[in-house]
Amino acid sequence: MVPDRLNRLSSRLHEEGIEHALLSSFVSLRYFTGYQATVELEPSPMTPVLGVFLWIRGEQPTLYLADMEPGEGIDAMVLRESFSSYVIEKPMFAVQDLSAKLVAKLRLLPESKVAIESEEMPAALLDALRSECPHLEFCCIKDVLSTFRMVKDAEEIQTMREALALCDLGQEIAKQQATAGRTEIEILNSIRRAMETQEGGRVPIIADVVSGPRTALTGGPPSARKLEAGELLIVDLVPRHRGYWGDSCNTCCAGDPRKEYREAFDGIAAVLSNAIGKVRPGIRACDLDSLVRTGIAKLGGSYPHHTGHGLGISWHEEPRIVPYNTIQLEPDMIIALEPGMYFEGGWGMRLEYILRVTASGAEVLSKYRHEL
Amino acid sequence: MVPDRLNRLSSRLHEEGIEHALLSSFVSLRYFTGYQATVELEPSPMTPVLGVFLWIRGEQPTLYLADMEPGEGIDAMVLRESFSSYVIEKPMFAVQDLSAKLVAKLRLLPESKVAIESEEMPAALLDALRSECPHLEFCCIKDVLSTFRMVKDAEEIQTMREALALCDLGQEIAKQQATAGRTEIEILNSIRRAMETQEGGRVPIIADVVSGPRTALTGGPPSARKLEAGELLIVDLVPRHRGYWGDSCNTCCAGDPRKEYREAFDGIAAVLSNAIGKVRPGIRACDLDSLVRTGIAKLGGSYPHHTGHGLGISWHEEPRIVPYNTIQLEPDMIIALEPGMYFEGGWGMRLEYILRVTASGAEVLSKYRHEL
Repeated sequence: MVPDRLNRLSSRLHEEGIEHALLSSFVSLRYFTGYQATVELEPSPMTPVLGVFLWIRGEQPTLYLADMEPGEGIDAMVLRESFSSYVIEKPMFAVQDLSAKLVAKLRLLPESKVAIESEEMPAALLDALRSECPHLEFCCIKDVLSTFRMVKDAEEIQTMREALALCDLGQEIAKQQATAGRTEIEILNSIRRAMETQEGGRVPIIADVVSGPRTALTGGPPSARKLEAGELLIVDLVPRHRGYWGDSCNTCCAGDPRKEYREAFDGIAAVLSNAIGKVRPGIRACDLDSLVRTGIAKLGGSYPHHTGHGLGISWHEEPRIVPYNTIQLEPDMIIALEPGMYFEGGWGMRLEYILRVTASGAEVLSKYRHEL
Repeated sequence: MVPDRLNRLSSRLHEEGIEHALLSSFVSLRYFTGYQATVELEPSPMTPVLGVFLWIRGEQPTLYLADMEPGEGIDAMVLRESFSSYVIEKPMFAVQDLSAKLVAKLRLLPESKVAIESEEMPAALLDALRSECPHLEFCCIKDVLSTFRMVKDAEEIQTMREALALCDLGQEIAKQQATAGRTEIEILNSIRRAMETQEGGRVPIIADVVSGPRTALTGGPPSARKLEAGELLIVDLVPRHRGYWGDSCNTCCAGDPRKEYREAFDGIAAVLSNAIGKVRPGIRACDLDSLVRTGIAKLGGSYPHHTGHGLGISWHEEPRIVPYNTIQLEPDMIIALEPGMYFEGGWGMRLEYILRVTASGAEVLSKYRHEL
């Protein structure tokens, strides 16, 4: 699918009057080359960029990758070059080495425009390129790229199904583990163990695991707090699989829920179900947001966050389902819908499913079912 | 300790003829403000920087933090301002909001020099500042900062003792779990569960967990590979605690080790022990490297990596114990020493302890003991 993506990029850049591209964000590297950067740790102490992708019109595209990075997953059409990030023989010089290698190529170009992501490029790298290549104009294409990955291709949809299967498993474990006496962090541990066993390796995961009064905060990292009988537990799981993120949220109760919890849960589930029935190509994100937000208000609740968002290589991307967004849904967009209600100083609840927009409606990709 | 660190920064910048500073790396934010950025996930889709630290000579230092970030741990002397990273009312504009807020302050300065970290500052942010503040010269102080945190203060030493206690616990579990039939990923899961239970929350961790023939590769992420009887297991654990990294490595055997493993293990342990005896203020990093590398060579082995490195807010920092490095050790530097030997297509082994350089020698901060 990488060739198709590059063809689309080529057309879009042509429309913008831009000849070439030098992209440096994690998401662009994954999308245009297949390279899956390792996450789960702070920025590397060895290099501020793990790789950059150089696409010169008419030439084979090249991924310049730090020499410590594994190159798994890189598409066959992408040439791989490495730059030195850490050697024991001399001080580190990643940016210098990378910029020298880029300059060697860029210097040969005629006067032209090069697309960059200036928010995800270190200033030191751009300074070096500008200084050595005054004949080039570097243009930030943030706006072009912000909507570029909204519609997913077949390979992406398949990868996301796999990522969402990890969510299904995690939510099943969460529901089993939501018993009085367990701590939030123990619950995440059990979830992670199941996911990593299934995956056969590490699974980076973003997770809200909050119980009792902490549920009123909408989310947060798991703590040593013990779940008490009758309390709520919000578990929002966002694991990464082959460079794509799944997402899911359920709220359950340790033991028998009191009546107001049951009513709120059923109410939110009905609002979500109604919204899923309204999803189809052509509906605007803002209208979907309004539909859900109004539905929750009718129940006497509210939520301060988005109604949903796109997801894929990033765990939060367009189409954002928020009040201002007039983007219309299209087939093969994949979106999260996650209405909730929260009462300050009291409790909170959120339910989320992931959907694929189809030609005439929506397919619910999440296979777990919300259970209080 | 933040005030002392800022005083030192002030003196160093003065020596360089630089008036102010605008720092943007994770490590500088932690060191100069106390702010502990969340790690364990890809760069935020909402903002390319979580925060920047503005220090204007003679004014209260200010941390500009993305509004989604928790501000725990920020020193009382540091003023906190926020910039908008994500709101549901309008499109994201983190860099624009941050740069506008910075420009409002920087515009008032007379012609002067401002220290920056140009490898850890997005080009878009620096472009905006340069364009609005042509009276300022932005100077990268990468070289000044690369050695600035080598000598640890009392607060750092205490925090690192706590981080290293997580390593001790992890290595104890690893040794217990190193039995035939267990998978590498299961072993890391057990380690992590113990650490996170002790910590009462999530523990970001970098880890090599490799068994059998994979040990020849020096390291790698845990896989679904099952440990077989008599095989080696390398476990290198690097957990993060309150913004500081611990580090540790042991190699153990599932069941009874064969003779060559025992001999290699005892040999490496003796080289390490001998090196620890030689650590004292004044010894050069390169000489320590040579001592250890030669010791391993005498055993008939070799390792392609460093002999060790400093650690702290970064898991790999100066003083790097490598062949080229003439830095002399000083009291209260904290270093890892990690000799090993690896045989291509065969097996590998590595042993690591963390030391604090004292007035006359070294204190071993790691409390676990290497056990084959």
